[in-house]
Amino acid sequence: MDGRCTSALCCDMTAFPTLEEARALDAADPLRARRADFLLPERLIYLDGNSLGALPRRTAGAVADLIERQWGKDLIASWNTHGWIDAPARLGARIAPLVGAAAHEVIVADSTSANIFKLAVAACRARPGRRTILSEPGNFPTDLYVAGGVAATLGVDLRTVPAEALVDAIDDDTAVVLLTHVHYKSGHRHDIAAITAAAHASGALTIWDLSHSAGAVEVDLNGSNADLAIGCGYKYLNGGPGAPAFLFVAERHQGLLESPLSGWMGHAAPFAFDDAYAPAPDIRRFLCGTPPIVAMAALEAGIACFDGVTMADLEAKSAALCDLFIAGVETRCANHDFTLITPREAGRRGSHVSFAHDQAFPICQALIARGLVGDFRAPEVLRMGFTPLYTRFEDVWRAVEILGEVMDTNAWNDPKYRVRNAVT
Amino acid sequence: MDGRCTSALCCDMTAFPTLEEARALDAADPLRARRADFLLPERLIYLDGNSLGALPRRTAGAVADLIERQWGKDLIASWNTHGWIDAPARLGARIAPLVGAAAHEVIVADSTSANIFKLAVAACRARPGRRTILSEPGNFPTDLYVAGGVAATLGVDLRTVPAEALVDAIDDDTAVVLLTHVHYKSGHRHDIAAITAAAHASGALTIWDLSHSAGAVEVDLNGSNADLAIGCGYKYLNGGPGAPAFLFVAERHQGLLESPLSGWMGHAAPFAFDDAYAPAPDIRRFLCGTPPIVAMAALEAGIACFDGVTMADLEAKSAALCDLFIAGVETRCANHDFTLITPREAGRRGSHVSFAHDQAFPICQALIARGLVGDFRAPEVLRMGFTPLYTRFEDVWRAVEILGEVMDTNAWNDPKYRVRNAVT
Repeated sequence: MDGRCTSALCCDMTAFPTLEEARALDAADPLRARRADFLLPERLIYLDGNSLGALPRRTAGAVADLIERQWGKDLIASWNTHGWIDAPARLGARIAPLVGAAAHEVIVADSTSANIFKLAVAACRARPGRRTILSEPGNFPTDLYVAGGVAATLGVDLRTVPAEALVDAIDDDTAVVLLTHVHYKSGHRHDIAAITAAAHASGALTIWDLSHSAGAVEVDLNGSNADLAIGCGYKYLNGGPGAPAFLFVAERHQGLLESPLSGWMGHAAPFAFDDAYAPAPDIRRFLCGTPPIVAMAALEAGIACFDGVTMADLEAKSAALCDLFIAGVETRCANHDFTLITPREAGRRGSHVSFAHDQAFPICQALIARGLVGDFRAPEVLRMGFTPLYTRFEDVWRAVEILGEVMDTNAWNDPKYRVRNAVT
Repeated sequence: MDGRCTSALCCDMTAFPTLEEARALDAADPLRARRADFLLPERLIYLDGNSLGALPRRTAGAVADLIERQWGKDLIASWNTHGWIDAPARLGARIAPLVGAAAHEVIVADSTSANIFKLAVAACRARPGRRTILSEPGNFPTDLYVAGGVAATLGVDLRTVPAEALVDAIDDDTAVVLLTHVHYKSGHRHDIAAITAAAHASGALTIWDLSHSAGAVEVDLNGSNADLAIGCGYKYLNGGPGAPAFLFVAERHQGLLESPLSGWMGHAAPFAFDDAYAPAPDIRRFLCGTPPIVAMAALEAGIACFDGVTMADLEAKSAALCDLFIAGVETRCANHDFTLITPREAGRRGSHVSFAHDQAFPICQALIARGLVGDFRAPEVLRMGFTPLYTRFEDVWRAVEILGEVMDTNAWNDPKYRVRNAVT
């Protein structure tokens, strides 16, 4: 071993294991029983849980109960009797241990994009006179788009500098540093503690987008002295397509920061129907409109899949799955011009692995046609996500075999694999 | 008849009908078959569809299909194969005929509150130099709260003037007039065309909140030359608790106004993953984050209940139901100090009727205990909503009887009816 693998489960990746050895890794996996919590199509190898998490077994029943028994029978009374009104805080409290936060520091609301807007405006207004939102080029597009919208709305600037120059770029004009913890394409993982410390040293705040890390690797917001964070409900949290997002506000900021989206659910007394807005004293002030309860029920079922799971187990399995895939591609497909763009060191990456290849798009389509679902990210990235709760070592082994066969036979080189859809 | 009733269904309300006469009205109702599209608890009279619409019969199946077959089996591919990516525009196009808009002028997104923010910021920025957002006191609270947030964010002012003084208050400092078409408490209906004309005469824009009118009465946005509108998915549209909301942007404004919530779903090419934001050329630029597809499926099932229904039928039945209730309370409860605060003239109100009574809270609780669900709005309003799709004339007749009995027997005067919950 070269020291890059942090998992006790991990074999020596310089010699890619046999199928039997991969199965032995599954047998020794402390998370192995979790796969049964999901309904995964047979014969499909789904390595795209980082884009849309798989369907938890309990979701359909939970949503049906919400619709048929709660909404259908108890109607408007359900806001009280079935705890709908508490859903944003209840779900937030269940997400909190997955990101190193206290229960009262996380709430579920709106979309990741809307939450970035709320927190970025709040942060800029908490740092009056500072005129810069700092991020990196190639950050997940919605983060940059929303930051640009914040900049245009407030009359400040959005500045992007490459990751390696970020810390030096933070200065006394920086209001807030907005970064995605794990990069959606490269898989690079930022050091939350180090960048937060640098920001604080210059008097700036930080916002961490946890969309590609929460539920997959260790995240320690309070241990890193983080200020603000947001994250996605439909990737590793398995909340269903477009599931509501979450946001984190460190306790020390909760009474001070104010949301620009001051909707009624963020009011201190929403049902008093006062004309004057008075923000809730706590994180509920970052709620806006009425929460989508049907979608919240699906998200709650997804979060429940983490009951009893430790972040250390997620991190270790994620590292081992990624290591196995990297070793597999680099041995089985050694002659096929794949270039690893994800950090080799497990602690410096998230739970997906990306290889650059100039034929990444048709290769990805050929893999999908053979029951291996990963995804393509323009212009040339083949990305595979490894969800610690349900991806098996055997799946990784088979994925490498399918990729090897597609490359050895040039099966990807077919015009039908070059047709592009609206969503790729 | 005194001319206030516009419905051919309506009897002479000065003599409250018998149960048999109410049933005859149901038999003659062109919308009578629609009730079968809903699953309403037996023996419950639900007059709160203006707060949370009832459960459509098709919803549970549509959502189960979305979860089990689409998400569960086709996973990420469903964005293309099951048209998830088109859901915001597809649902908008289905709502459009209910509000007098063209199909490409309505889109489903986010919450009513978030949509108010987007449109109010866009409108203010389209009227640079003007410093006032004009609304009325007692407007639905979230409208005022969000308008206040917009004002604070942009450095403009939120000014409220009573409804009767609104038109005269519009001047060359008014950027936008933000009003709820039908008032959530009084039921008063604004004249969209007249106020819009006055706003335009001063160079201002209008935003109409249709939350308490869309799907219940006639709304003619384009016939009224309206600029912008937003509305709720979970009241008369029956989309389920916290269903996504909709927004309208008149075609003439679509290429000009820009959303401050510039998330990736509003990008001209969201899956190009460019760093630079380029708004979609059409109403899709008012999308923000990934839409909650599970909640969208429920909303689509709700909207489907309007297939083949005309606004004229909704308006006529709404008028007749409200007329019946007013006549009933004023005859059956003539000695019980109820004061009608809703306009008597059908064309000047929406589809709910409110009476002021100093014991409105315990009265409302006593009614709920007897299977009549309306609601209380502080400090003294008893409000009953009449949903044209599923409320029967017989329900109204029975509601009046229950109210009469509660009042005649002083049944409301019991300490247990004074206990308040989080949501009332």
